[in-house]
Amino acid sequence: MIGGGKDAFIGAVHRIAANIDGQVELCCGALSINPQIAKESGDDLFLAPDRIYDNYEQLISAESQLPAEKRIDFVTIVTPNFAHFAPAMMALDHGFNVVIEKPIALSLEEAKELQQKVAETGLTLCLTHTYSGYPMVKQAKQMVKDGAFGKIRKIMVEYPQGWLSTLTEREGNAGAAWRTDPKKSGKSGCMGDIGTHAAQLAEYISGLKISKVCADLNIVVEGRGLDDDGNVLLKFDNGANGVLIATQIAAGEENALKIKIYGEKGGLEWHQMEPNTLLVKWLDQPAQVYRTGQPYLSEAAKHNTRVPGGHPEGYLEAFANIYRNFALTLRAKLNGETPTEAMLDFPRVEDGVRGMAFIENVVASNASDQKWFDFKL
Amino acid sequence: MIGGGKDAFIGAVHRIAANIDGQVELCCGALSINPQIAKESGDDLFLAPDRIYDNYEQLISAESQLPAEKRIDFVTIVTPNFAHFAPAMMALDHGFNVVIEKPIALSLEEAKELQQKVAETGLTLCLTHTYSGYPMVKQAKQMVKDGAFGKIRKIMVEYPQGWLSTLTEREGNAGAAWRTDPKKSGKSGCMGDIGTHAAQLAEYISGLKISKVCADLNIVVEGRGLDDDGNVLLKFDNGANGVLIATQIAAGEENALKIKIYGEKGGLEWHQMEPNTLLVKWLDQPAQVYRTGQPYLSEAAKHNTRVPGGHPEGYLEAFANIYRNFALTLRAKLNGETPTEAMLDFPRVEDGVRGMAFIENVVASNASDQKWFDFKL
Amino acid sequence: MIGGGKDAFIGAVHRIAANIDGQVELCCGALSINPQIAKESGDDLFLAPDRIYDNYEQLISAESQLPAEKRIDFVTIVTPNFAHFAPAMMALDHGFNVVIEKPIALSLEEAKELQQKVAETGLTLCLTHTYSGYPMVKQAKQMVKDGAFGKIRKIMVEYPQGWLSTLTEREGNAGAAWRTDPKKSGKSGCMGDIGTHAAQLAEYISGLKISKVCADLNIVVEGRGLDDDGNVLLKFDNGANGVLIATQIAAGEENALKIKIYGEKGGLEWHQMEPNTLLVKWLDQPAQVYRTGQPYLSEAAKHNTRVPGGHPEGYLEAFANIYRNFALTLRAKLNGETPTEAMLDFPRVEDGVRGMAFIENVVASNASDQKWFDFKL
Amino acid sequence: MIGGGKDAFIGAVHRIAANIDGQVELCCGALSINPQIAKESGDDLFLAPDRIYDNYEQLISAESQLPAEKRIDFVTIVTPNFAHFAPAMMALDHGFNVVIEKPIALSLEEAKELQQKVAETGLTLCLTHTYSGYPMVKQAKQMVKDGAFGKIRKIMVEYPQGWLSTLTEREGNAGAAWRTDPKKSGKSGCMGDIGTHAAQLAEYISGLKISKVCADLNIVVEGRGLDDDGNVLLKFDNGANGVLIATQIAAGEENALKIKIYGEKGGLEWHQMEPNTLLVKWLDQPAQVYRTGQPYLSEAAKHNTRVPGGHPEGYLEAFANIYRNFALTLRAKLNGETPTEAMLDFPRVEDGVRGMAFIENVVASNASDQKWFDFKL
Repeated sequence: MIGGGKDAFIGAVHRIAANIDGQVELCCGALSINPQIAKESGDDLFLAPDRIYDNYEQLISAESQLPAEKRIDFVTIVTPNFAHFAPAMMALDHGFNVVIEKPIALSLEEAKELQQKVAETGLTLCLTHTYSGYPMVKQAKQMVKDGAFGKIRKIMVEYPQGWLSTLTEREGNAGAAWRTDPKKSGKSGCMGDIGTHAAQLAEYISGLKISKVCADLNIVVEGRGLDDDGNVLLKFDNGANGVLIATQIAAGEENALKIKIYGEKGGLEWHQMEPNTLLVKWLDQPAQVYRTGQPYLSEAAKHNTRVPGGHPEGYLEAFANIYRNFALTLRAKLNGETPTEAMLDFPRVEDGVRGMAFIENVVASNASDQKWFDFKL
Repeated sequence: MIGGGKDAFIGAVHRIAANIDGQVELCCGALSINPQIAKESGDDLFLAPDRIYDNYEQLISAESQLPAEKRIDFVTIVTPNFAHFAPAMMALDHGFNVVIEKPIALSLEEAKELQQKVAETGLTLCLTHTYSGYPMVKQAKQMVKDGAFGKIRKIMVEYPQGWLSTLTEREGNAGAAWRTDPKKSGKSGCMGDIGTHAAQLAEYISGLKISKVCADLNIVVEGRGLDDDGNVLLKFDNGANGVLIATQIAAGEENALKIKIYGEKGGLEWHQMEPNTLLVKWLDQPAQVYRTGQPYLSEAAKHNTRVPGGHPEGYLEAFANIYRNFALTLRAKLNGETPTEAMLDFPRVEDGVRGMAFIENVVASNASDQKWFDFKL
Repeated sequence: MIGGGKDAFIGAVHRIAANIDGQVELCCGALSINPQIAKESGDDLFLAPDRIYDNYEQLISAESQLPAEKRIDFVTIVTPNFAHFAPAMMALDHGFNVVIEKPIALSLEEAKELQQKVAETGLTLCLTHTYSGYPMVKQAKQMVKDGAFGKIRKIMVEYPQGWLSTLTEREGNAGAAWRTDPKKSGKSGCMGDIGTHAAQLAEYISGLKISKVCADLNIVVEGRGLDDDGNVLLKFDNGANGVLIATQIAAGEENALKIKIYGEKGGLEWHQMEPNTLLVKWLDQPAQVYRTGQPYLSEAAKHNTRVPGGHPEGYLEAFANIYRNFALTLRAKLNGETPTEAMLDFPRVEDGVRGMAFIENVVASNASDQKWFDFKL
Repeated sequence: MIGGGKDAFIGAVHRIAANIDGQVELCCGALSINPQIAKESGDDLFLAPDRIYDNYEQLISAESQLPAEKRIDFVTIVTPNFAHFAPAMMALDHGFNVVIEKPIALSLEEAKELQQKVAETGLTLCLTHTYSGYPMVKQAKQMVKDGAFGKIRKIMVEYPQGWLSTLTEREGNAGAAWRTDPKKSGKSGCMGDIGTHAAQLAEYISGLKISKVCADLNIVVEGRGLDDDGNVLLKFDNGANGVLIATQIAAGEENALKIKIYGEKGGLEWHQMEPNTLLVKWLDQPAQVYRTGQPYLSEAAKHNTRVPGGHPEGYLEAFANIYRNFALTLRAKLNGETPTEAMLDFPRVEDGVRGMAFIENVVASNASDQKWFDFKL
């Protein structure tokens, strides 16, 4: 693991997610740019002292020289955005598969280089767009794919958070500080941090691709370095229209990602904060409440579920589904087998490229007086 | 009553709303353009045979010649949009106050003429934007006005319906037929029919005015004569941003008007389909569930409530609040008194003008390649 | 109307409910035992001065001597419980149909006398168990009757209120004062006031009859004259078991009547405070959300609905359904027609007798050390 | 681990819960009474071949002879109820701490023997009453303890499941088979399996003890060997009353444990299936929505939370909280430190004794004609 030292939020989440199924073991780390913190964090995690490294270069070099049976199988990168690209490239160059926290890099260009490198090496890059790991999201995707709703006509996705309602970045919140700093976070704040999740979720479930955007990005809290709020009108490649709202100044909201998709025959609605329920709506028939863990669900939903219905699964389990599918894919490849579609159902480098393109397109659209902006890859 | 014969939806709603409080009595009607239906409808409603009229001209003329104690106090116009203006003008000219179903007219120009006429005559015109009649909407407005949330920063309002998911207008649905016919409905379908409600609600609660729009209107169901779907980016006069979504092709939705408003210190959320709950969110404190009929509510909310907490009030009561406040205003004026602010809290001709302006602005914005369009009155 | 003067809660509710459909007109009243209040209340309601009476005896005598076309068709009794029986008997004796607020009387004996009188006179007595008037309750009853859930096995009904959490009756709350006074309220407080509603609802939807009870009634707030809380284990005549909880000391609750019924194949759940939703649960299939105003509903539900889906109906509309069906029944009888089953779907004297029996049985069970107590009529 | 081989539900849950925080490592197992399955299950879990045992006797003997630094620290017993007591006693006798799935044993007598043994050995026994591990349950307990609601007056706890609506035990469902077999499950089916959870939750949050019961247990599905349904009236040691409903024949229900507690000043409501919300109700003030992960929560709630607000935690995290607190307690004891109150916040042998007493008391009450039955320990 690169990054993710003490008190870093997302590093701990990655470790729990990797631990849950007992299929992945944390063996080494360059857990902080501060060697003292890196050392202490490694000790806390019971790492062997000689596998606690000072930085990612050391980690990748040293591990690549270990014998195969001792060497790690993949590297997880949980640093701020600006420190994704270099370690990922180096890891791939040294033959390691990679897990990266989203967004994949600082720019579309970097993302494309990673895509090229993945193609050349045949290695696997996993991007942790967690929300597509929920069982009910899998169910939603499957129902759309099966044509249950007919042609998709409209997508409404909103992602309101409230934690940047004040200048949190100046109150000692490290996560807020780098996320609002263009050098560390990239060209967009809110749209990069959470807008990309919303866009990925919309495309994942619908199977459609965004083809045009009309964006309004805002810096609502005075003195902030990057957008903390934005609204985007969308067109999809099948002609459907949509709206994506992402904001971090919605005071009182937690992490309220919601999506509604409508087709000719019905629609669906899913809320991340009550993730085990998928509301399915029909023309002229009562809506149905699909629930995690039930026998009537698709294989895709069942494959990504651990406990029986009524025992709520949450964010960590969704995250763990991404790790598990990634681990199953690696194991299959190590065993010379072809991973199944179910194993391959985790976000990859292509999602990273689309995510960076989303950021660059909405930033460009926002800067333009023209209404519609073609989505460019 | 003009319009509102047998089987017309909104006419019956107006009669119930007027009846509820026992303050208004239906005395006469020109209930249909078909005299036979007009007659039968009048009989069903126990109207005196000599006050069942063939058309609105007859009704207004005849009633205006009755002695004051027998004559009606106001005229309710519940015809399709294209037949609002003429009877309203004639009624005002003959000294009658007027209730009109929204939108007020076919064009902004007509709306302004009505506004002019109202100003000249000193009569009262009431526009039934029902949703602003709910007690929890009153509470929301009051809390915003009192500064509970600080400066308002963002407004998200959505109004999905599903009843036009198919070409209902060709399947014998009279309401669908005129609403999708530009000659009878005006320049917009969905935005006129329900988008205006959403815009009025957003302005009513927030106390802000829309200052810019960027609209995407769509005819989703092939063969339809007017937009059945639309998304609008908004700017308000205090700098807040917003999104308004109105659609009638959201298959499986009923009448799911929802609004979320965020300020510096917190926010609020209200759903028309569960209207007795107002969710109030705070930075760093638990959200609160405000409920109709509770002692802690504002006077404005209490004034518009009939039963104790826990006895749900609904759409008809919200509608009746508009009638009651209108009736209280008329009575005060008849008695030579000045109506109180609480009595005057019903939508009036100014709302009608803004509603027509909303329609014309979003239609113009939709036709333009320019992103932002200044809202013109 | 007998009772229901200024500021009396339930009298105003009856008037609104009767007004809504324009089928009933309030013509006279003995609205208070205080003649001054009776007079003022009558004036407020636009009653003719000569039909504002000082007491119920005067009202019934005078009205019975009016010519048929001017005379009232029925009497509504909205006095406290102790003043139900005498005016009801006198009204029936003088040929008037009767509407009574529940519970029907002070004792089972009185209820049976009323039942006898109704049988003798052939007149109609309507008891306003409001909650059985909701469209989704009609739908629930129909689905059970149609066997959708197979044999019913278990019923859980709860009715928590919080308004008697303190000694409200000594703080000037007139409604609390008579309800907690055995002389005015009868043998039970909470079980009479709201337990009877819960029992009636359970029997109404399930079509079953309570056959045994095991009751625990409590005076939770020290100093109170009657039970303010109670829990009852139930057995039904088909062998199903159940639990009925009614309490008025559930601090923070409004009027949270909820019922869950389970059969062999599925179950249903309905909450009075969100009355337009009926949750229908199935073995091994997703739950379904039935909603007021939808085309897939039963005729019984549709007959008791006024507005299209998504326009919430509430307590007053449920109340009005009882009045409307009662009025339709009277009109049919006046016209020499046989009322249809849909018209006759309102609570009648038999429900009153069962309600009084429920009160007497739970009071007796509570006083007994024996676990199960056969329900005696 | 003893029990918990392939396809056993609760064994896998224990492993995930133990894994999540990376503080516990599975080292050995006697995972099935079938040695072949035990072997295969151990291999799947990457156990060392020489630590995959054929039965619990072998496991405990062999592990107790290993050097301290290699030896396990505790044994987890996830067998059916009848096979809890013997391995637990043997483990304690050999110096191992113990985790047992609830209920603790087959009888109150066994439970008391375990309690005695724990007292003698000074070891720790942890009982996995999962539901008390949720952060919002901790918050609820803390608020009651802090007197936020005043004296507690009433507790309503219900636990409906539907999975035994048919004779599942004859359809190859192994979990259903042993749970409905008195020899393997004990004196009660439903009350033992889930009623004990409900009782423990009520006592845990309220800090009260059940002092009287009046039970109605039922075998609803014909041919079943033990109760599958039951309703219990309760009295608590402070005079509060309550109702506990547990049923496994509520067709269409998943795992719908809900609790409502009312005091003099307000009340609380928590639903296991939406566990991150705690609804807090107040006399005359709006209800509040407490949410997992928020800064305003008690230390107890925060200590048992892993991710920020809005990232839902679920059943596995609640389960993991029990393991984590148990592990923290063991580590403190191993280090010669006194565990803090927060560490000791997991169900222990005393909960096991009360759970078995609950079963025996409700079974005896059910068999009796007497209404109230004193709760005997």
